[in-house]
Amino acid sequence: MNTFRTSRVVEFCDTDMAGIVYFANFFRFMESAEHAYLRACGLSVVTTWKGQTITFPRVSVSCDYVKPARFEEELTTEVRVDRIGRTSIRYRFTVSRAGEELARGQITAVLCRILDDHTLEPFPFPDELRERILAGPARDTP
Amino acid sequence: MNTFRTSRVVEFCDTDMAGIVYFANFFRFMESAEHAYLRACGLSVVTTWKGQTITFPRVSVSCDYVKPARFEEELTTEVRVDRIGRTSIRYRFTVSRAGEELARGQITAVLCRILDDHTLEPFPFPDELRERILAGPARDTP
Amino acid sequence: MNTFRTSRVVEFCDTDMAGIVYFANFFRFMESAEHAYLRACGLSVVTTWKGQTITFPRVSVSCDYVKPARFEEELTTEVRVDRIGRTSIRYRFTVSRAGEELARGQITAVLCRILDDHTLEPFPFPDELRERILAGPARDTP
Amino acid sequence: MNTFRTSRVVEFCDTDMAGIVYFANFFRFMESAEHAYLRACGLSVVTTWKGQTITFPRVSVSCDYVKPARFEEELTTEVRVDRIGRTSIRYRFTVSRAGEELARGQITAVLCRILDDHTLEPFPFPDELRERILAGPARDTP
Repeated sequence: MNTFRTSRVVEFCDTDMAGIVYFANFFRFMESAEHAYLRACGLSVVTTWKGQTITFPRVSVSCDYVKPARFEEELTTEVRVDRIGRTSIRYRFTVSRAGEELARGQITAVLCRILDDHTLEPFPFPDELRERILAGPARDTP
Repeated sequence: MNTFRTSRVVEFCDTDMAGIVYFANFFRFMESAEHAYLRACGLSVVTTWKGQTITFPRVSVSCDYVKPARFEEELTTEVRVDRIGRTSIRYRFTVSRAGEELARGQITAVLCRILDDHTLEPFPFPDELRERILAGPARDTP
Repeated sequence: MNTFRTSRVVEFCDTDMAGIVYFANFFRFMESAEHAYLRACGLSVVTTWKGQTITFPRVSVSCDYVKPARFEEELTTEVRVDRIGRTSIRYRFTVSRAGEELARGQITAVLCRILDDHTLEPFPFPDELRERILAGPARDTP
Repeated sequence: MNTFRTSRVVEFCDTDMAGIVYFANFFRFMESAEHAYLRACGLSVVTTWKGQTITFPRVSVSCDYVKPARFEEELTTEVRVDRIGRTSIRYRFTVSRAGEELARGQITAVLCRILDDHTLEPFPFPDELRERILAGPARDTP
C-alpha cells in the first residue's frame, strides 16, 4: 500500500523537563500525519459521506520509542494504511530524523457515524470510501 | 467578592525542557480553578439555562510570571470574580506555592448561547445566574 | 502485586472537538498515576539514588479505548506494577468512571542514569529500589 | 521594525469540546512564531552566547480573542519585535486566517543566562545580539 510522509519541526511546547519530546506527543505527530493523509485523499477525519457525519474514533494505539527527539529537530512521520476491515482501519507509522528511526507506532480507528444525540455508531466502510483511502494521495505534502 | 482556592500537583507533562511549568499551562490551571468555582456554585462552563445551552468563550486573557513552578510541587490557584458586566465576566487569579506567589492572571469571558448552527451569540446575564455566581460557593474544594 | 488508585476530574483542556477526552491524554492520566505510585513508595520519576540521578524514559506504551470520557467526569486510574526486569519496569493501567472501564493501557520504562553530557544510560535496578517499588505504597492517595 | 510570518494548519489536538482551538493554544502558536523568527535571525530560544547558555523566560503574556479558529484551517501568525530593553524583549503577534484577524497577543521575555545550579539570572542584551534580533530575518519561512 501507499506510504505518505509529512514533516514538522519540534516546538518548545512539545518538550518536557527531560529535555526531549514528551512521549505522548508522538501520538499527536502520528495522528497529524494520518489527517494529512486523509486530506491528501480528499477526505477529513470529521467529514460527511452522503449526508452522514462520519468520524474515526481511536480504539487501540501503541508506540515503541527507539531514540529521543529534541527541540528544533525536523521530524518526518511516515504513515501507511495497514489494513481496512469492515468498520476499522489500522495505520502504521514511523517517526524519523534525517533517516534515523526514532519511534514506530500504530493507530486503529473505527469508522462511525455521529447520531443526532451525539453518540457514535460503527459504520461499515462504503466501497467508494475504502477505495479512495487505499488508492492514497497523489504525492507527499511538505 | 468571594475568593475560592483549588490545589493541584504539577505533573510531568506540565513541564518543558527548561525544567519548569510551561508558561501557557498556567492558563489551564487558572481555567481549571474557574470551572471548579462554577461547579461549586452549582454551574458548569457548558451548561443549560432555561432550555438554552450557554457557554463562556474567552475574549481576553493575561498572565504575569513571578517565579517558576516545578514538577511535583503543590500549587494553589485562587480565583476571584472581579466584575460581571451585561454579558461579560472577569476573573482574577493568583497561583502560589506554600504561600509564595508564582503568577497572577486574569480571564475575561463572554456569556454566549449556542445556536442551532453551532455559532455563538452573546447572551445577557440573567439576574438569577449573576447572583448565583456572585454569591459564590459555600467553601473551597480540595 | 499491589494495585494503587488515583482520581481526577476531566478538565476542559483535556477534551477535543469530538466532545470527549483526547485519546493521547489517557497517557497523561496513566503516567500521572505511575508517578503518584512512585511518590507513594517514597520515590520520584526523576530522583537520585546514591549520588546518581536516575529517571525512567518510556520505551513502549499502548492503550485500548473502550468508552469515551467527558468533561467534568471523575475518572479513577488504577496502576499495577506488572513486571520488573533487569533494567525495565512495566505498568498496567485501567481508567474507569464509577466502576465502568473506559480504557486499559500499559507503559514500559527503562531505568536510566543521567550522564554528565545529559545522555541516558540503562542502569540495572538496585535490589533495594526494586524491593521498594514492589512493596508498593501503604495506601491509595485521594 | 520587521514583521515576520509563519503558517500552520490547525490540528485535531489543538481543539476543545467547543469545537474551536483551545484558547491557551494561541500562546503556543505565538511562541512558535517567535522561535521561527529567532531561528531566521540565526538564533534559538535556548542558545549559547560567547560561552554562556542563554534563554528567554516569559514574564508577561496576553491575548485578545476576536474570532474562533477551527480544525484544518490554515492560520498565519505574524510576529513583530516591539521593543528591546536592557534585559527584556517584547513581541507583538496577530493570528489570522485568510487575512481575517482572529487574535492579537503579546509576549514579554527576559534574557537570562543559566547558572551552574540551573537557576536563571537576568543578562543585559549584548549589542551584537540586540542588533541581530532588530535586523530581523531576510525573509519569511513557509
